[in-house]
Formats: sequence, C-alpha cells, structure tokens
Amino acid sequence: MTKPGSLDFVPVSERIATFDNDGTLWAEQPMYFQAFFVFDRIKQLSPQHPEWKTKEPFASVLKGDVKSALAGGEHALIEMAMATHAGTTTEEFDKIVTDWIATAKHPKTGRLYTEMVYQPMLELLAYLRANGFKTFIVSAGGIEFMRPWTEKVYGIPPEQVIGSSIKMKFEMRDGQPVLMRLPELNFIDEKEGKPVGINSHIGRRPIAAFGNSDGDLQMFQWTAAGKGARFCLYVHHTDAEREFAYDRKSSVGRLDKGLDEAAAKGWTVVSMKDDWKTVFPLEKK
Amino acid sequence: MTKPGSLDFVPVSERIATFDNDGTLWAEQPMYFQAFFVFDRIKQLSPQHPEWKTKEPFASVLKGDVKSALAGGEHALIEMAMATHAGTTTEEFDKIVTDWIATAKHPKTGRLYTEMVYQPMLELLAYLRANGFKTFIVSAGGIEFMRPWTEKVYGIPPEQVIGSSIKMKFEMRDGQPVLMRLPELNFIDEKEGKPVGINSHIGRRPIAAFGNSDGDLQMFQWTAAGKGARFCLYVHHTDAEREFAYDRKSSVGRLDKGLDEAAAKGWTVVSMKDDWKTVFPLEKK
Repeated sequence: MTKPGSLDFVPVSERIATFDNDGTLWAEQPMYFQAFFVFDRIKQLSPQHPEWKTKEPFASVLKGDVKSALAGGEHALIEMAMATHAGTTTEEFDKIVTDWIATAKHPKTGRLYTEMVYQPMLELLAYLRANGFKTFIVSAGGIEFMRPWTEKVYGIPPEQVIGSSIKMKFEMRDGQPVLMRLPELNFIDEKEGKPVGINSHIGRRPIAAFGNSDGDLQMFQWTAAGKGARFCLYVHHTDAEREFAYDRKSSVGRLDKGLDEAAAKGWTVVSMKDDWKTVFPLEKK
Repeated sequence: MTKPGSLDFVPVSERIATFDNDGTLWAEQPMYFQAFFVFDRIKQLSPQHPEWKTKEPFASVLKGDVKSALAGGEHALIEMAMATHAGTTTEEFDKIVTDWIATAKHPKTGRLYTEMVYQPMLELLAYLRANGFKTFIVSAGGIEFMRPWTEKVYGIPPEQVIGSSIKMKFEMRDGQPVLMRLPELNFIDEKEGKPVGINSHIGRRPIAAFGNSDGDLQMFQWTAAGKGARFCLYVHHTDAEREFAYDRKSSVGRLDKGLDEAAAKGWTVVSMKDDWKTVFPLEKK
C-alpha cells in the first residue's frame, strides 16, 4: 500500500484509517466511560435541579442506583447526557471535561480513564501515522467529550475526531461571541450513522477501519466496499483477567452480527487474551 | 506567530486558517457558480420531471428566465438545489460534479469556473501552508459540490472542506452499501452557521479568517475573539474591469455590515483594483 508501483499502492492523501473509541481504543466496562461523566455531572448540577430528586432517571443516579438509572436504555442515557452536556458554552464545556478526565477514577481499577487505553492500539495508531495515514476517531461518544484529550492521549487532533453531538447556537454574550450548547440532538454517530459521519467530516472512504462491536459494522461494510486493498479489524474482548470478557450477549459493546460477518468476509479478529502481550500501558515492562 | 519564543507564537497544531469560497477564492458574479450547476442539472433532469414545465421556479429555468427563477430568493434556490442534488448516491453525485466542473463555462468570460479563482488567494493559501497552517474552506456552498475539485484547484483536501449539506442515508443497494442523498436540509453554513460548522468540523478556533461578505462576519467575530494575535481579511470587489465591482447593495455577496465592522475593528480590507497585480491565473505574465 505504501510502495510506489505496487498494485495496492495508495497515495498519502487517501490513506485514511478510522477508529471506534469505546472498547477499541479504551475500555468500556462496566459502562461507557462517558456515562460515569454524566453521573458525576448530575451529582454536581443537582443543587440547581431540585426536581431531579424525584424525577427518573436522575433520582436513581442521585441515590447511587446505577442499574435503575440505566433501565431506560439508550433513551435514558441520551436524556441524561443532554441535560448535563447542554447549557454551557463550548469553552466552558471543554474545561469541565478537561478537569474531569484529569481526576476521575475508574471504579474497578482505580486508574484514570486515560490510563485504560490499549497499548497495542497506541502502537497501531503510531505505526499507521508513520506510514502516511491520517488517523480518525469515529465514535458514538460525544464529539466534545473526546476532543479535549484525544490529541494528548492518542495523538489524534480535534479536527480528526467524529462523534455524536448536540446542536450549537452562535450568539453574543456581553459583547463576546460564544457557541451555546443546546439540549437538542444533532447527530448520533453509531451504526448507520458512522458512514454518514465519515462522509460528512472526511469526504473520503477509509481504507482501514477498527472497531469492537456491532455499532462498527456499517463502518466496516462501507470501508470494505471501496476499490483496492481494504482492512477491517475487530478487537475481541476475551480477557476476563486483564480486562473484561464479553461479546454476543453484552449490553455494552455487543459483538454478535459483526463476529459472523467478520468470519464470512475474512476480516481480522484480534483476541485480546491470546494476541496482546500488553493490554494497558502501565503493565508495560 | 511562527517564531518560537515570540509572544505571538502559535504551535503548528493550532495554526488554523479558514476561507470562504464564493467571492473569496473564486468569483461569484453574476450569480453563485453553484447556481449555474443547479440550472444545468434542472435542464438535464427535466425529461424525468414533466411537472417542472409548469411548476415554478423550475419552469422559469427551463425557459431560460434566470431572473424569474431567482425571484423567490434563497428559498427558491434551496428548493432547486435539493431537487437537483438529492436522489443519487454520494459516488454518483461526485461524478456528476466532476464532469460538470471540467466542462461548464462562465457565461461572461467563457472560461472554466476553476479558471476564475483568484491568483493572490492561491498564493496566500500556499504561503500559509508553507508556514505550518492547515487551510480550510468554510462556505455556504454545498460541501459535496466543492469536495470533488478543491484539492486539485486550491490544494485543500475534502476533509478540510466545510459547507452546507443535505441529509444522507446509509443503505444496501444490490448488496452494496451506499450513501443516498436525501432531499432534506442538514446544515446551512452561512452567517451564524459558520462558527457552528467550524466548531463541528475543526473543534478549534481559527487564528486567521478570510472572506468577502456579510455572510463571513460571524466567522470573523468568532476568529477575532480568540486569545493572542488574530487576523481577519475581507476581499473587497472593487475592480469592474478585471472582475466585478459590488459591495453594500449587491444581492450576491453583499458586504455592508462587514465593511463597517472591519473599519471599527481594524480588520484588513483588500481592494482588488488597487492591491492585486493579477486577479485570475490566466492573466499571469
């Protein structure tokens, strides 16, 4: 692909690789890390929202009952995300995320969330970039939840981060222009949304795509359908000891249809247990 | 800005420059060049739309009566754009634009539209890139109308083009994944929309912005409000002989409020007549 004259040669400008984030670049159990952020924000904002004490799913979060809070599924999570992600300017929200990501700890490992990124994937990102690839994140997570830290952690700048979003409004506040974050959905970057997000932000088809769940399947189909050599890779969570083991029946990061289609189409499936010497950077010797 | 240690030093990753397209990088008179494309598409598609013979604004286009066709203003233009830009896959639309831009000629100059780009702006783009800037287009024009040719003409790759868009839908057609273009507005990248589009696609505030009309004013306000040295530049169309002369009263590319605010804030205003030795590349000696 990088060798001029080769049948599979791809010019540098077209070397686009897209990566899912949750479960592909960092862990996602026992729930998406952004959900921990949402819950912390609900606790933080609760004095301004006395009605949350009796209003679900907020009431359950304030009681520490995560299971009930999430009983409403994706709908409940989106409702909570909007209530806690809107109402600030973009700059204020950037600072809120930056402060949280620097201090919040994972409940099981006690580590910073940014320490729970996958060492082999960091090496893969670096390897691709060393070979002329532009690396993009294409995640169902919030675009402005990721951008404040992806450059430092993954080497992926904000303009190469694609994610779900709420609407923004340009307005003047005390004579200064701001972008206000509105409690209104703009785009869900998941499943069929991923090729749409890729097209909107990149305008080229990736030649390599990396994911870990059925949410990445359409991105893989879109990537694989291009001309010339293509590469799709599923990270398979098989290591209950060093990380978490889950696939076909997990409510978070379900990998079911994708596993079947990977087998049928010859896509690469990496077993974290069998194929990864190191999982997290801190284990590195 | 590029000198380490200087008070105004900006690291390469933050050197973002945004450019309006119509009237800033290429000409826009007697009407936006994309409108010529829309009119050509209406003529091309008319056999499949017998109803257009009696339905405005399409009927006027088919009669060659541009003035009546545009009497409905922006609303009519958007209606025609959607009717002619939707109903294809992204790949089919890319080919339609590529074929058109390679052959269609401007009614006054007889030149290809891509020959009506501004030589000083091409030099500016190259100068900024030579100094570590990433150059972006931020245009009210259709994002997928620009992407097929901006890399070749301006050196700006598709992932650095931001524009107005219609909605897309991922679907399987004969077992192959496609993105269908729907007759439904997604985003208008104009006025207050420009800072929103910049935030969505880039996630950083530009440090330099270039435009020619009131449609760029909010982009300038957003750019200028950042910390440190900032640069905003209006191209002022003052050369009736070599190009076109228009500003405060033009229906296309009106520059009125922007001219006042540029004077008040000390933004740079370039007079095409007085400051540009060459306007179009073909004049170059």
